[in-house]
Parts: sequence; structure tokens; C-alpha cells
Amino acid sequence: MASKCIITGVPGVGKTTVITGALARLEQEGVRYANISFGSFMFETALAEGLVKNRDEMRLLSKDDQKTLQQRAAGAIAKTEGNVLVDTHASVKTPKGFLAGLPEWVLEALRPDLFVLIETDEDQILGRRLGDPSRVRDMDTYRALASHQSFNRAIAAAYAMKTGCTVAMVTNADHLLDRAVDDLAALLR
Amino acid sequence: MASKCIITGVPGVGKTTVITGALARLEQEGVRYANISFGSFMFETALAEGLVKNRDEMRLLSKDDQKTLQQRAAGAIAKTEGNVLVDTHASVKTPKGFLAGLPEWVLEALRPDLFVLIETDEDQILGRRLGDPSRVRDMDTYRALASHQSFNRAIAAAYAMKTGCTVAMVTNADHLLDRAVDDLAALLR
Amino acid sequence: MASKCIITGVPGVGKTTVITGALARLEQEGVRYANISFGSFMFETALAEGLVKNRDEMRLLSKDDQKTLQQRAAGAIAKTEGNVLVDTHASVKTPKGFLAGLPEWVLEALRPDLFVLIETDEDQILGRRLGDPSRVRDMDTYRALASHQSFNRAIAAAYAMKTGCTVAMVTNADHLLDRAVDDLAALLR
Repeated sequence: MASKCIITGVPGVGKTTVITGALARLEQEGVRYANISFGSFMFETALAEGLVKNRDEMRLLSKDDQKTLQQRAAGAIAKTEGNVLVDTHASVKTPKGFLAGLPEWVLEALRPDLFVLIETDEDQILGRRLGDPSRVRDMDTYRALASHQSFNRAIAAAYAMKTGCTVAMVTNADHLLDRAVDDLAALLR
Repeated sequence: MASKCIITGVPGVGKTTVITGALARLEQEGVRYANISFGSFMFETALAEGLVKNRDEMRLLSKDDQKTLQQRAAGAIAKTEGNVLVDTHASVKTPKGFLAGLPEWVLEALRPDLFVLIETDEDQILGRRLGDPSRVRDMDTYRALASHQSFNRAIAAAYAMKTGCTVAMVTNADHLLDRAVDDLAALLR
Repeated sequence: MASKCIITGVPGVGKTTVITGALARLEQEGVRYANISFGSFMFETALAEGLVKNRDEMRLLSKDDQKTLQQRAAGAIAKTEGNVLVDTHASVKTPKGFLAGLPEWVLEALRPDLFVLIETDEDQILGRRLGDPSRVRDMDTYRALASHQSFNRAIAAAYAMKTGCTVAMVTNADHLLDRAVDDLAALLR
């Protein structure tokens, strides 16, 4: 049975690396997933509908337009044949607080089977961000990061109540990437 | 006023013992509760409807059939006269992650007044599972168990938002069963 | 764009003090908020509709009446022109457990943009309650208070899933009221 899986993790946790590894492993076994970035997919939907001309204009959309766009993107993903992996965020840290990555109207359109939180110790995430110049905008204190990961677990529970999806945690610890890849592959298999 | 109460706790926390003690105490005071195991009730509903011939077939039902069954069972429980205690799980640990014991469609059919989490220190639960051969299938590390209890609290908060039920925690600590029984009886009284 | 903000915090955290400070600062900048206590607003709605004659009668209302009242009050607040700040509780501690301050039907009527949790270290809250005779009814142990603040964070995540509002935490630490006021003002600005 085809499944819709949502994979999330805070910036710097190594989400893309774990996803790439798990999908490569599954590919060898003949298990295929369409790998969709929810943000990019929304942008392409907005472009196609003439709502924006470039990515910068996305944040200028009204709240209602963003909501409609989210719903349309989620609906299109839900109609994709076969297994789908949606790469997104459990919550996004904004200047006004944490924003649900999958508010109710997105969940209702997407109907996910599985929701994955890729996590690790906050100290390791801080270390990775320090070593990655592209993550400077995501600099956090240890406590702020712990709050974010903890908020993500709480909102994942609300997603599970809303949709009936399972919620799994995959730990991507330093020096143990193989294990994270194994764990994610087992969830997607 | 009759009330619908949901009682939950991870395997090994002593849920059945606490429920039995609390109901016996209330019985003496003339307060009666129908004590329903949600899993058994669903199975009987499935049997009666000819969906399954035995308990093993329950897990072979399609997702949609399971959902319909959950709704029908919850609806039947909601119609029960008098006080009802529903013995179930806040979330179930599966190979694909935590699964909501009471997804939205069950909550909407059940309309509970009270949701109870029976909890205790993870170390005590591990000790009880080690001493109980029937719990071998539930063996967890301390951390995995702490994650489970914490996920249960988070999903209970989502249940409270959805239904307006109150959420109470009852601690069933080693050597203090009487206190847990008192606490649960006070919630059900 | 006018916004609807919900500000919450456990008894003794200093919610009113922080709100008053932040609104005074914004007033100087020409930013105005209607400051509505949800509890008082509900009481006035009930008085106007002849449902109660005094505040004590509020708790005698049936569950259904309370729900209708909550919905009507939330709907009226949603229609208020301009910025609105709603002073209420993420969850209320009752003898039957934690009760959602904003169950689904209130959220649907209110449609908040921002949800704020004013928090601080439990030990500091206990100290403030000990020094305030009007808080005697709210006496808690350190653990009970930590459970309450933690439940509030979890239910705030469910609110974010339901409404798409952002969830921000403001710390009102001892000796650092100015910082809490700054942080809240920045969220409301």
C-alpha cells in the first residue's frame, strides 16, 4: 500500500543527509518514494498560479492566500501516485513564535500515514550549526533549541490526534549517521 | 450527572490494579461504573458485524475498516446509560511509531468528560515489567519509556483541546497503591 | 493589520504586570490594544443574556450553557475592531484535572494570530505565591507547578495546529520584569 510520510527536523539536525541515505538504501531494494520539499512545492504551485514571480514574494502573500496555497499544495501531494515523502518542518521558528508546519487544513488535505521527527542532542545540533556558515541565521541557545525540539514533539502529538498517523522519533547522533539511516529506512520500508 | 471517563497508562504501570481498586471503593459508596476495555469492545463489535472471526484477524483489517469500527464502538459506548469508564491507551507504541489511542473521530463519537493518565517513574515501570513475563513484548529502555509517557501527556493535551475534557495525572508509585486508588476514586466520584 | 493575541500564564507568574507594562509601552508608540479578560467578558455576556445574576452563578451553569457562552463571548471578541489582547489561561487547574482554556469551539470562534505563554522557573512562581495572600488557593508543589507549565506548552502546540497561530514563550524572571515587558511588546508591536 502506498504511503504518505512527513519527515521533519530542526535546522542543522541533518535531515537531508538522513533522508538521502534512507532513500538510496530503499532504492536498492526496489522501494521508491517521490521526495517532495513542501516549501518548494508550494512555491512552484504559487508560480504556476501566477500568485508570485519569485521566491521572495512568497512571504508577502496575505495570510488567506498562504492558507489557500498550502491547501492546494497539500491536496496535489495527496493525489500523487505511489509512496510520497514530504520534507518539511514540524514547526518553524519565527520572530512571532513557533508556527505549525502542518496546521489543520494542511493535515486534512495531506492525510499522512507517518510523521517522523529527526532529532538529536541539542549540543550536537549547536555544534553542527557553528560549523556550517549557511546556518548562521538559525543560531540558538541550548535552551531555545531544546524548547523548539520539545515543541515539535508536542505538536506532533496533536498531528497524531488529528490524522491517526504514527509519530516516530529517529535520532541522528554524532558518528552514528548509519543508524539514523537504518532507522528511517525501516520506517519507510 | 453520568460521566464518561477514559483511563490510560503504559503497559506495566498497574492500570488494571488501580482501576479495580477504585471501582471497588466506589461500589461500596453506591457509585457504579460500567468498565469497558476499548480494545475488547471493538473486537466484539467486529465479531457481531461479521468483520472478523477471531482476535488475530483484527490487525488484518484495512485502515478504513478499523476507523469505521473505532467510530462505531465509540458511538455505542457514548450511548451507554450511566457512568462509563473506558480502559484504553493514550498512545500505542508500534513498529512505525506512536499511534493515537483516541484519534479525532473516536473523540468526536465518545465525547469524554475526563481523561486520566496513570503514571509513575520510568524506573519503577521497568522493574515491574522485568518481574512480569507477560510484559516481555513491552521491554523498553528507560529513555524510550520516558518518551512514551511524555508523548502521552502531549497527546492528552490535544485531546483536552478537542473535547473540553479535563486531564488528570494519577501517580501509581511503588508501595503507594492505596494512594493511587484514592486519587482515581476521587476523580471518578 | 489588526491582530488577535491571547496572553496566558499560571497564577503568580506576573501576567497582569507584564501585560500592563507592555501595553503602556505600546501606547506611547501609538499602538493600541483592547485588553479583554476572557473570564470577565464571559460573565458580562452571561449577565446581559440573563443567564446569571452574579459571578458565583457562573460555575452553576450546565456544561452546554457554558459552551454556548464561551462561543458567544469568543465570537463577540473576534468581531472587535482593531488589535485585541485576550487575557486568559492556557489551561485551568481544577479538582478533576487540567481544563483547556481554549477548547476547539473557542479557537474556531476567536481565530487568534498569536498565543503567548508567560512563564518562569517554578521556584520563582512558588516564591511569588508565598508572598501573596490572594494566591493561597493556588498553592502547588514544585512538581505540580512544573506539570502545569508543561501541560500549558503542550496544549499551546495543539492550539497552533488548530488555528495556525504562532506560539511564543515570554520569560518573566525575578528582577528582569523589564525584559519580559520588552519581549511581550515586541510580539504585540
